[in-house]
Amino acid sequence: MSELDSSFFLVQRHGPTVQLSMNRPQKANGMTPDFWTELPRLLGLLDADETVRAVVLTGEGKHFTGGMDLAAFASIAALFQQEPGRAAYAFRKKIMQLQDAFTAIERARFPVIAAIHGACIGGGIDMISACDMRLASGDAYFAIEEINIGMAADVGTLQRLPKLISPAIAAELAYTGRRFAAEEALRIGLLSAVTDSRDELVKAALALAERISAKSPLAIAGIKANLAYSRDHGVADGLDYMATWNAGMLRPEDLMNAVQAAMAKKEAEFADLLSEGSLAI
Amino acid sequence: MSELDSSFFLVQRHGPTVQLSMNRPQKANGMTPDFWTELPRLLGLLDADETVRAVVLTGEGKHFTGGMDLAAFASIAALFQQEPGRAAYAFRKKIMQLQDAFTAIERARFPVIAAIHGACIGGGIDMISACDMRLASGDAYFAIEEINIGMAADVGTLQRLPKLISPAIAAELAYTGRRFAAEEALRIGLLSAVTDSRDELVKAALALAERISAKSPLAIAGIKANLAYSRDHGVADGLDYMATWNAGMLRPEDLMNAVQAAMAKKEAEFADLLSEGSLAI
Amino acid sequence: MSELDSSFFLVQRHGPTVQLSMNRPQKANGMTPDFWTELPRLLGLLDADETVRAVVLTGEGKHFTGGMDLAAFASIAALFQQEPGRAAYAFRKKIMQLQDAFTAIERARFPVIAAIHGACIGGGIDMISACDMRLASGDAYFAIEEINIGMAADVGTLQRLPKLISPAIAAELAYTGRRFAAEEALRIGLLSAVTDSRDELVKAALALAERISAKSPLAIAGIKANLAYSRDHGVADGLDYMATWNAGMLRPEDLMNAVQAAMAKKEAEFADLLSEGSLAI
Amino acid sequence: MSELDSSFFLVQRHGPTVQLSMNRPQKANGMTPDFWTELPRLLGLLDADETVRAVVLTGEGKHFTGGMDLAAFASIAALFQQEPGRAAYAFRKKIMQLQDAFTAIERARFPVIAAIHGACIGGGIDMISACDMRLASGDAYFAIEEINIGMAADVGTLQRLPKLISPAIAAELAYTGRRFAAEEALRIGLLSAVTDSRDELVKAALALAERISAKSPLAIAGIKANLAYSRDHGVADGLDYMATWNAGMLRPEDLMNAVQAAMAKKEAEFADLLSEGSLAI
Amino acid sequence: MSELDSSFFLVQRHGPTVQLSMNRPQKANGMTPDFWTELPRLLGLLDADETVRAVVLTGEGKHFTGGMDLAAFASIAALFQQEPGRAAYAFRKKIMQLQDAFTAIERARFPVIAAIHGACIGGGIDMISACDMRLASGDAYFAIEEINIGMAADVGTLQRLPKLISPAIAAELAYTGRRFAAEEALRIGLLSAVTDSRDELVKAALALAERISAKSPLAIAGIKANLAYSRDHGVADGLDYMATWNAGMLRPEDLMNAVQAAMAKKEAEFADLLSEGSLAI
Amino acid sequence: MSELDSSFFLVQRHGPTVQLSMNRPQKANGMTPDFWTELPRLLGLLDADETVRAVVLTGEGKHFTGGMDLAAFASIAALFQQEPGRAAYAFRKKIMQLQDAFTAIERARFPVIAAIHGACIGGGIDMISACDMRLASGDAYFAIEEINIGMAADVGTLQRLPKLISPAIAAELAYTGRRFAAEEALRIGLLSAVTDSRDELVKAALALAERISAKSPLAIAGIKANLAYSRDHGVADGLDYMATWNAGMLRPEDLMNAVQAAMAKKEAEFADLLSEGSLAI
Repeated sequence: MSELDSSFFLVQRHGPTVQLSMNRPQKANGMTPDFWTELPRLLGLLDADETVRAVVLTGEGKHFTGGMDLAAFASIAALFQQEPGRAAYAFRKKIMQLQDAFTAIERARFPVIAAIHGACIGGGIDMISACDMRLASGDAYFAIEEINIGMAADVGTLQRLPKLISPAIAAELAYTGRRFAAEEALRIGLLSAVTDSRDELVKAALALAERISAKSPLAIAGIKANLAYSRDHGVADGLDYMATWNAGMLRPEDLMNAVQAAMAKKEAEFADLLSEGSLAI
Repeated sequence: MSELDSSFFLVQRHGPTVQLSMNRPQKANGMTPDFWTELPRLLGLLDADETVRAVVLTGEGKHFTGGMDLAAFASIAALFQQEPGRAAYAFRKKIMQLQDAFTAIERARFPVIAAIHGACIGGGIDMISACDMRLASGDAYFAIEEINIGMAADVGTLQRLPKLISPAIAAELAYTGRRFAAEEALRIGLLSAVTDSRDELVKAALALAERISAKSPLAIAGIKANLAYSRDHGVADGLDYMATWNAGMLRPEDLMNAVQAAMAKKEAEFADLLSEGSLAI
Repeated sequence: MSELDSSFFLVQRHGPTVQLSMNRPQKANGMTPDFWTELPRLLGLLDADETVRAVVLTGEGKHFTGGMDLAAFASIAALFQQEPGRAAYAFRKKIMQLQDAFTAIERARFPVIAAIHGACIGGGIDMISACDMRLASGDAYFAIEEINIGMAADVGTLQRLPKLISPAIAAELAYTGRRFAAEEALRIGLLSAVTDSRDELVKAALALAERISAKSPLAIAGIKANLAYSRDHGVADGLDYMATWNAGMLRPEDLMNAVQAAMAKKEAEFADLLSEGSLAI
Repeated sequence: MSELDSSFFLVQRHGPTVQLSMNRPQKANGMTPDFWTELPRLLGLLDADETVRAVVLTGEGKHFTGGMDLAAFASIAALFQQEPGRAAYAFRKKIMQLQDAFTAIERARFPVIAAIHGACIGGGIDMISACDMRLASGDAYFAIEEINIGMAADVGTLQRLPKLISPAIAAELAYTGRRFAAEEALRIGLLSAVTDSRDELVKAALALAERISAKSPLAIAGIKANLAYSRDHGVADGLDYMATWNAGMLRPEDLMNAVQAAMAKKEAEFADLLSEGSLAI
Repeated sequence: MSELDSSFFLVQRHGPTVQLSMNRPQKANGMTPDFWTELPRLLGLLDADETVRAVVLTGEGKHFTGGMDLAAFASIAALFQQEPGRAAYAFRKKIMQLQDAFTAIERARFPVIAAIHGACIGGGIDMISACDMRLASGDAYFAIEEINIGMAADVGTLQRLPKLISPAIAAELAYTGRRFAAEEALRIGLLSAVTDSRDELVKAALALAERISAKSPLAIAGIKANLAYSRDHGVADGLDYMATWNAGMLRPEDLMNAVQAAMAKKEAEFADLLSEGSLAI
Repeated sequence: MSELDSSFFLVQRHGPTVQLSMNRPQKANGMTPDFWTELPRLLGLLDADETVRAVVLTGEGKHFTGGMDLAAFASIAALFQQEPGRAAYAFRKKIMQLQDAFTAIERARFPVIAAIHGACIGGGIDMISACDMRLASGDAYFAIEEINIGMAADVGTLQRLPKLISPAIAAELAYTGRRFAAEEALRIGLLSAVTDSRDELVKAALALAERISAKSPLAIAGIKANLAYSRDHGVADGLDYMATWNAGMLRPEDLMNAVQAAMAKKEAEFADLLSEGSLAI
């Protein structure tokens, strides 16, 4: 049994791309405790595998995901039977663990592409907001469902969505909890493309992943790290960080490789990153 | 006479929604000293009234607002007859008071929806940029008028508009002061909808407010507070704040209420917040 | 020989507007060492000339710019023949100098308008991202070319582009390095207008510059400084800075000037800023 | 009856200095609801009175202050009889109001000098941490009392004390809640001086206030604003803010006044700030 | 075999306090790969054990710690035999893992008290800078040893020490790498106390831990979290976070408990936090 | 004539250390326009000379410096004869240029050690606050003189001093403008040592510089850059920057060099940084 066997996800390898598919189709891939521990565990393993260069995130069955499994709410109710200050402390810690499961997407060195079909609601929005790119099939629909059940979304939607799309639109979606379709999601910039069918959806996502996998994985990791840094800092700070990053990471090998390939009218091939354990400290 | 009687605004109650209407129609709702003191005063009172769940901001007469009343400029000229360093200090304090009148919109715990018709220029742009959502009728038009009278807008446009719409477009509008119509405002994301007529405008704004008023007012306040926090902080900080917020504010009552209503195929009804004075310290 | 004579740029004066044109057409205006030193030198001189009120940035020949001149890569390769820690330190310093050449666009007190035709790739994207506004002719095309040659862009694209256009789109363009045309650039908000021909492009850019030059140069400088400040700070900080700025810079002269001109149905004329050397310390 | 008559404070005028004395001596100046509303109200009035140039904060009776009045805890207990999410929301709002009462000290344009004798515990530490300077008589003693009653101090001690004294020492005092004497408070930098007796204490504080009152009130306000800004920002930001501040506020009048007085071997006399209402907008 | 058995640390329980002792005395507790993985692993386990309320960090043998084990440097040399850009990437990741081992001290909900004897150099300074309090015996000595071996300290000293003691002194110690004794360390505020002997050292540290363990563990966790937050944010942000924290965590139970104990002249006893697993999501 | 010949400074070379001595002794080294342009020019040249490893800043004649030359105030008065908004803009730019002259000290890659005798007042405090270390002879005295002439110090004192010494003490010194002696400056941590005589002062400063010059200049530059970064950022950001820095800059050469020297009981010798021009872009 492989480390990549998972109680929640189906893990498929397509060359340098890995497809992580939520695999609880009978429950619309509702997010169980297993989901929350498996997602960061798998991403950590893939991050450490230098042959992985991109991840595509999909869902088995009719829907991408219906969000948090309802059983969670009974657990919360049970928790608050106890001393309320200590319960609040335990609750905060748990919310942070859930948030961290999605931040693992951001922490990964490779792009994570969400390929969405059917429902993507509640926790699903939190999750895709942490991805690097998002594609959907025409039947996909979305809702910041949390407000409809009396709560403020707390695992990333309010933090990341208004930094991806217009904050004015994000606010309206968060306050009203209204359902919106793939077409609107494309128009507001949440999606970068909409495919006609689900089959095409996964193909398009894998093709995008393949394109990215052909680039230098070191440069891709640099872009991802610096985009995240720049989102959260002013421009002067971002420039300084970028210069400091490339001072260490930009070396002539990849450049020369690319230039020579271009002159030879060939595709450049870029070496993988070093394997885990190349530095024993 | 009620506390809500105002020398500048007409205050109308529609169930949990309050309509604040600028009421100096003969002067295009030009912003007088009364405007600047009444707006924060009224918002403070409404914020303290736990039965209020949304506010719609409108203008009486032909125009939403023509911005700052011209008399202000003569006052500035008079001020600078005095010792210029001390005048500058007094001027800075006044600008901050004016800014604060619009920040009161942001500080309110409920969404404020601007419903715009006719002219919305100068200070009007500063004001609607501080609102949570914006609708307009097709005849509305807009201009960052300040540059046309030789000044940089200083009560919020330059700070909030580029965080609502594309900063590149915001810059062009700020530098040129050109007039733009409702249609363009919709396209660039400043508006979330444009209605055919003024009548429909107020109806649409009240309907949106009503929809929001049916949600948990505690969750709505949480969304508003966290959207504002996240706009001004990095994602990691925003997540921490969100977790800390919900650790205290997310309790099973609203959740259970919503789930049970859903199972009974009914609309959930969410209790108001606690009344002012429920904690005497 | 004038200080404004340049080994890389053609400098043309159109009243208060200056056109800076990259002038190495036979090499697609590839960025040589001269480019990197001349750009900030010229902008510094123009900034100190109080009669300059706007700059238009263009390229001679077939293309706006193909980005970094290839000779740079051989220099990097030579550098890393030396002790690698010290080479990294020297490399970081150089990257920061190159970044600073584009930040000089931001530091200038007047708007800089990019007028783009043909290719605008690699360093070209970094450059136009630092401009205040961008126009292009219909034949223009763009690519974040760096990833195609195995590197993460390091002179500003990753820092500024996602604060100009949707970060989700910016990410996709940065990861894939795909070419995109003027039409798409307009749709995603990178451009504020696309003209039919190159001739019209320069005309349109100069007309925009002329419009801005007719405004108060003090107010324009205030808008530019405050837009930059607000991009990199939270709203509360931005408001405070704005109030402190206008406390010193907003004086009745320009206001009265504008109001009187309006009453006389004339265009107001605003005086230049003070000349360099008006304060000898 | 004057606006300055107060149900909690004794307000005494000494030329340009105002002494605010907590006046509930029989209860060790325990902080009642009146305290929390009167403190910001009075500081606001004094701030608007341009003839006030410094404030000294003292306590009547045996102690400076024993901190929060115990009745507050019963109110909190009563609050949490209600729906716990809404109670938490109301509680947060109240804590912010209390915090704001001390932030009013920071917001005032003039220095506030705490003159401490006897006990200064709990809320007393929060309060003096917001002051600009602190003196004590030898009998004074201090404790971050909150931890001894099972809570984390929440009205400013944890935020301001570690930015005044060594964070390592502040942590130890916060975790242990141990009592420390004036002598130690002086050694760790919390106090700038310790006097032998209480009489000398008030004299010393008033003398310090008098010294400051003889300076330019505009320059003093500039120092206070910029120290606060710089505490909360990086150096580059602080310098920019300072330059922008003095661009508006530093005018030759005060400088010339000072230089001429120096040449004439006299004390310069600096004019008050402008009166409230010098700018009607 | 218990989870707390460790290849590097000796773990001893003293009621609610746990003593973690580095246990490689023959090598001056040089930091091996085991050290770096065991420290965060153990702290994570202790954090999850609600009966733990404080940790004391000590060293077996003659010295607290001599810092990084020298074998690390050979590993770094081996790493850089490989492609230098990818090696730099791997190296950055490793440095961040090492940093994270010390940040685990900060992340723990309870105070960690360092009790230092003999040498505390290099990585030792990085480690104690992340602790909440520091005690030493008179024979202890310290040095920011990294500069003496040609490197800038990179696991926390440069980030945390200047926020604990005077930045001017921290700079001098970092540039010169000079050795300084317990007495000086006390004077500059790095230590909160110096004991005569090593026996007294551990006794004093355990006594301090015991005192803290008698407080409400919820309040202690709140103090620790808010001190860390406030160190890294401005005062306004810190106050908001504090209010939001206590809105959820401050409940009447601990307060009433403390007040009743005080009235009965007894020590209050505060319940532990809730056990791991009290919330199953 | 050498580039290092200067109209204001005497430049002396002591091996890898350069002594920059203010050389307008008859006017107490009052800061003239030449001072403000020469200081950054010289520091830039020294920074580009890879054989320079430390700078000592001294003053010729009786005093270190009396601060700003009085002629500046007449220039300011003349400036404000002109349109006040434009004058304010010009004044802000000038203040920023002056600030930048001291920031050049911070930007230099090597430590700058101030060696102070006699008066160090006004601009002198701004200057030494930007230095890395400060020594003084026993006769030195200090004052934040600006408040005594009716202004808030604006070239760095209010920004840097409270991040070097206790902010509470810095505030008192800034508000009162009182003179304080070397002994007090030592006690409050502004100085790291006080020498008996002026001769010993320069010797001590040069000896400290020599000690630092024997270290790896790459590591010293890394310490300086990271101390500055960490001062202005939170700990998490500081750690990330440090890891990214050392990923590129920490290479085995210096480490191995140091370890081998230690084993041979010799002083390690560290190579200079690479010369300017080692990278031609």
